[in-house]
Amino acid sequence: MSLATLQRELIPIIEEQLKSFYYSLDFGQSQELQDMIAYHMGWGEEGGNHGKRIRPLLVLLTTGAYGRKIEDALQAAIAIEYLHNFTLIHDDIEDDASIRHGRKTLWKKWGLAQGINAGDALFSIAQLAMLELEHTSSQPTALQAMKEFNCTCLHLTRGQYLDIAFESSKNISVEAYFAMIQGKTAALISLAIRLGGLIADQDENRLQLLAKFGEALGMAFQVQDDYLGVWGDPQVTGKSAASDLIARKKTLPIIYGLQHSDDFRNIWGDIAISIENVDEFANLLVSVGAQSYTRTKAEGFTNQAFSILEGLFPSKNPYSDALFELTETLLSRKY
Amino acid sequence: MSLATLQRELIPIIEEQLKSFYYSLDFGQSQELQDMIAYHMGWGEEGGNHGKRIRPLLVLLTTGAYGRKIEDALQAAIAIEYLHNFTLIHDDIEDDASIRHGRKTLWKKWGLAQGINAGDALFSIAQLAMLELEHTSSQPTALQAMKEFNCTCLHLTRGQYLDIAFESSKNISVEAYFAMIQGKTAALISLAIRLGGLIADQDENRLQLLAKFGEALGMAFQVQDDYLGVWGDPQVTGKSAASDLIARKKTLPIIYGLQHSDDFRNIWGDIAISIENVDEFANLLVSVGAQSYTRTKAEGFTNQAFSILEGLFPSKNPYSDALFELTETLLSRKY
Repeated sequence: MSLATLQRELIPIIEEQLKSFYYSLDFGQSQELQDMIAYHMGWGEEGGNHGKRIRPLLVLLTTGAYGRKIEDALQAAIAIEYLHNFTLIHDDIEDDASIRHGRKTLWKKWGLAQGINAGDALFSIAQLAMLELEHTSSQPTALQAMKEFNCTCLHLTRGQYLDIAFESSKNISVEAYFAMIQGKTAALISLAIRLGGLIADQDENRLQLLAKFGEALGMAFQVQDDYLGVWGDPQVTGKSAASDLIARKKTLPIIYGLQHSDDFRNIWGDIAISIENVDEFANLLVSVGAQSYTRTKAEGFTNQAFSILEGLFPSKNPYSDALFELTETLLSRKY
Repeated sequence: MSLATLQRELIPIIEEQLKSFYYSLDFGQSQELQDMIAYHMGWGEEGGNHGKRIRPLLVLLTTGAYGRKIEDALQAAIAIEYLHNFTLIHDDIEDDASIRHGRKTLWKKWGLAQGINAGDALFSIAQLAMLELEHTSSQPTALQAMKEFNCTCLHLTRGQYLDIAFESSKNISVEAYFAMIQGKTAALISLAIRLGGLIADQDENRLQLLAKFGEALGMAFQVQDDYLGVWGDPQVTGKSAASDLIARKKTLPIIYGLQHSDDFRNIWGDIAISIENVDEFANLLVSVGAQSYTRTKAEGFTNQAFSILEGLFPSKNPYSDALFELTETLLSRKY
């Protein structure tokens, strides 16, 4: 059974559970609040595109890979997806973003105050979903899962703090950048995979390896994304060449360039970047070593992810195979 | 032992636990995020005034009233206070408020994006504090407490939704108004008292009575506050006379007036209210029955609170005595 087959089977189950738990909650006289979050999730009359539900899929595949039935992990899976979407609702406000998945962002549609509040509601809903775990797992497991869930929530806000702080900072170290993406990207992927193992009753040693694999996967994915944002082939990435340079996003190669090259720092501060001069910037970054640095880091995290993954599932089954395939898809080397 | 004696004893214990749990958390490279929340809580170099910590006090008094040692309820008590403060951080943004307790609000000091994120961090911290309950209570109790805690979180956002929606609405029913203050004010007080009983291992029947008492206390307090906002004696309330009318706050008497009097609705929409004409508005509200309606409602909730309270603690002790005294203080009839 391939990843594609399992995805076809599991994504509708995830979507159904996301909806049925959500619509089982009582919103009393605040029906419109329920509609707002449903809109963000892509449901209802004004619904539409939404995310790929990769994080809940990672939970289910990990639980399945250890031979436990995936139904037991469904509540944790949807809790992770609610949590992810709560962060998106607030991120959109914090980034002043108008559009997500081709539709107006929640806060642009209902205003700032309702946007913040709808995010808070979805955060509470994520907690309530996680708490349902006690019906399919033991109480110690449910409590441990809640603790790990909320440690990760705090970690996400630490990463988000750095991300916001970087916007107005001219002097970001690569170490601080790694701490930021650890919180913003890797922490939740790591949690998804660790929870999948926890629900399948794996021991602490195994759980630590699962968390490490998830973190390496998340870091590799982000650093690759950073690489492709400057040197990716537009034909493959679907974005314009060096799009992160034009958008002035402070990604890893750019932070490396700012830290290691006076030339780059000066022209980055002085000259507007457009489609006409973007190649010069990208080439300057190559010449100061930012490209090879970023590629080396991406390869390092990627190799780490695969090497942990290979040790994790000595006996193969459709779920562990799919986990390999998903990791390969996410980390396919496009450079 | 009077309320004052117990307050002098317990408030420093609450404050100490609030700080020691908070400063035990790892903020990694996001030290400034820790400083932001500490500032809001009134701690650190730029600290200062903060709230009275009434909600955690209610938790401890209730636990103590049933003969259980208050240390066992400390984590729930601080979790409730963190939760309350998380809602204040976000409320200040949603209400565009610049000042709280005589100091700049967190978001005015660090910006909108960091303000939202700091609130999210404190929400996560509230959850982590609640989860420590498993070290002093049984696991089933800890899980039940987490569930009630998060049901209340969702209730708070339902109330907040209505509050925000009311700002732009001309047609608010008193029923919707009661649903709003149930979420905004009563739900958290009710939770504080119910959790105090849960930690003292009271049965579900008792817990429901405790929750009802807390809700009646919260509702009575809010409706009294609404009454005093229009007809309170400035000498007693410390506010200017009819301050809620001048601030155009949509409190219960005003909503009643808008619903029941065409005259009031017309002049409310057309004429600016100032210290010169505010008595006319207040008198018009009296003549349409808004004063007696509000007073009757306040008395109804107050009587309900006392009648439940009297049935709850047949055997008196210093904690239950203090709970009576605190209820009397909060609901002292100033009209």
